[in-house]
Amino acid sequence: MDNLKERSLQLHKERKGKISVVSKVSVHTNDDLSLAYSPGVAEPCKAIQEDPNTIYDYTTKGNMVAVVSDGSAVLGLGNIGPYAGLPVMEGKALLFKEFANVDAFPIMLDTQDPDEIVQAIKHISPGFGGINLEDINAPKCVYIERRLKEELDIPVFHDDQHGTAIVTLAALINACRLTDKRLEDLKIVICGTGAAGSSIARLLHKVGITELYGFNKQGVLLDRKYNDYSFLDQDLLEHDILLSPDHLKEDSLAELIKDKDVFIGVSVKNILTKEMIQTMNPNPFIFAMANPDPEITYEDAKAAGAKIIGTGRSDYPNQINNVLAFPGLFRGALDARAKNITDEMKIASAKAIAAIINDSELRDDYIIPSPFDKRVVKEVAHAVQQEALKEKDTR
Amino acid sequence: MDNLKERSLQLHKERKGKISVVSKVSVHTNDDLSLAYSPGVAEPCKAIQEDPNTIYDYTTKGNMVAVVSDGSAVLGLGNIGPYAGLPVMEGKALLFKEFANVDAFPIMLDTQDPDEIVQAIKHISPGFGGINLEDINAPKCVYIERRLKEELDIPVFHDDQHGTAIVTLAALINACRLTDKRLEDLKIVICGTGAAGSSIARLLHKVGITELYGFNKQGVLLDRKYNDYSFLDQDLLEHDILLSPDHLKEDSLAELIKDKDVFIGVSVKNILTKEMIQTMNPNPFIFAMANPDPEITYEDAKAAGAKIIGTGRSDYPNQINNVLAFPGLFRGALDARAKNITDEMKIASAKAIAAIINDSELRDDYIIPSPFDKRVVKEVAHAVQQEALKEKDTR
Repeated sequence: MDNLKERSLQLHKERKGKISVVSKVSVHTNDDLSLAYSPGVAEPCKAIQEDPNTIYDYTTKGNMVAVVSDGSAVLGLGNIGPYAGLPVMEGKALLFKEFANVDAFPIMLDTQDPDEIVQAIKHISPGFGGINLEDINAPKCVYIERRLKEELDIPVFHDDQHGTAIVTLAALINACRLTDKRLEDLKIVICGTGAAGSSIARLLHKVGITELYGFNKQGVLLDRKYNDYSFLDQDLLEHDILLSPDHLKEDSLAELIKDKDVFIGVSVKNILTKEMIQTMNPNPFIFAMANPDPEITYEDAKAAGAKIIGTGRSDYPNQINNVLAFPGLFRGALDARAKNITDEMKIASAKAIAAIINDSELRDDYIIPSPFDKRVVKEVAHAVQQEALKEKDTR
Repeated sequence: MDNLKERSLQLHKERKGKISVVSKVSVHTNDDLSLAYSPGVAEPCKAIQEDPNTIYDYTTKGNMVAVVSDGSAVLGLGNIGPYAGLPVMEGKALLFKEFANVDAFPIMLDTQDPDEIVQAIKHISPGFGGINLEDINAPKCVYIERRLKEELDIPVFHDDQHGTAIVTLAALINACRLTDKRLEDLKIVICGTGAAGSSIARLLHKVGITELYGFNKQGVLLDRKYNDYSFLDQDLLEHDILLSPDHLKEDSLAELIKDKDVFIGVSVKNILTKEMIQTMNPNPFIFAMANPDPEITYEDAKAAGAKIIGTGRSDYPNQINNVLAFPGLFRGALDARAKNITDEMKIASAKAIAAIINDSELRDDYIIPSPFDKRVVKEVAHAVQQEALKEKDTR
């Protein structure tokens, strides 16, 4: 057992978990009690009953996000269930607080049925200002998020889908700044079309990138294999978000990757080889985000001629880290009292993250700011809030 | 609008609610992030997966109570729903923290269907060490609590039922100490047989009081009217928890109260008269807990010859206040890792509350300690923990 593992166990045991619920009001006298509880508390209750929107004035709802998981796809650990998944959701809650001063609370669901998950979340929604779905397996996570977005009037966001997509878009924007490539012209292969991969595809399509191709366990995504796919992959082909290169001679990543500009991996380790990179267009961008072991190592990608390399790891340059996106995104959405998180807000977040790094700082190994750069949350929140106000879907 | 109302609104608005979720771990560096979140957090996850009981070591579960309500019976405000009820549940959560250092979190349910409530609570239970039901209307609250107690292996407690019952029992114990009456011999009328009244009846029956009579909107509870009653009242008659005085000439409180020792009111204002008190046995105890206006005023009860008077109000002596019970009760149950809250733990709580006041301090107008007496939570928690360990239904 290496040192990090031991230290993490010890930290968790010492503190007995990582979050705590505290009172913002002290209760030392009968008067305190009368103000914060009975009978005084009846007043904000009556005010909310008269005007439901005042719940944002008198309660924590407006700053409270539920971090909801069924434990079906936790980190790289897989379906470890809602009990074993709790330390991760507590961790997520503390990131919300530490990075963006958002109150967040872990809700672990003792069901993995999509409709029961939707039902449970709807049932507990009144006290929350937003829902962050986390570590729920694909494709059901997409179904769950879509239903909740339709049926609730508070922001709902599945971070595993869109967090990675936002930061990947930020990375592409800055990679283009360093080369003579234009975002819209990029030819991109997305390896892995689950929660993260499909959201990346959608978001890149939304910003005008048309040449997007998908590869997954079933090989290259092709129209002619349509009936073999999950609804998620079908959806990507049906709406021409992913193109179907039906003319390929071989159904292989090696064949697909030829003459492309970008490899985006959210899949499994070692699937990309140096040889494949050498068949790509000049100065390719390689984002190999499988964790902890990427689709190709940083060193091999470099040696094969990759111009810009990003991974999911903090010990290499250009870490594609969700923590750059979700704290500021929720901060902005909550501050605007947005009813929804839209694609435009995600794009605004990506642009804000990219813009943190100015021209003189931008380098091949510095296209993504540090998550500890205090400007990140501030700028993302501001951009999202502005976008929300523009969309006028707020309360 | 009197001053208290204004000040309460202002307090709630200034603070934007009364609770906050904070991190027990700081995150300033990549190393912090690796310990509290990915990849270090995988270790406690794996430990819990191997031994589910370690969730109590590595997470907040063991100190985290859900304060759950559907807003169907909030204070004296009635069915104001889950949104308008949030200030009360936040208040309850802060009382847990301030009085007993229990982390508690409000969960407002967007359904008032009993089975959906049970389902929702079961679905969100993995992250909680206990469930405090609150302000759910009768009789469904009893059904919900019974089902959850059977189906969950963490403490479940409906405070509106049992909190009042525990403190009422404590009051009776100390009232007996001041008179020559014995607990088991008391002849008691319980006025109001909803959530609180029926739980009071059960708990007093459990400690050996046999002469218990019920009165509610339908009049005196009588066997011959059995079919007109809710399952809750039927249950009380069926199990001889309440006796049926079928010989009464009139179906009235005035007739029922004659020659009784104790009036316990959890009903409506002004239902008890001075004349009625004068027909009771000598030195009667009057606990008139309707809030804010009691079944008879303190002054009138006194003038009519009541020996000991308790109300639900903090501006009169002997306030029967739930806050004397639930913080210590949960503190003890959580510390013992009890799987359930039993009648014996409730009785132990009542005895502990009563015993706070020693013989030299005990007076007619001081049979209940102050909720701000620091010994209360400590003694109740200790008594409950001891009882839980005796019952051996812990983990």
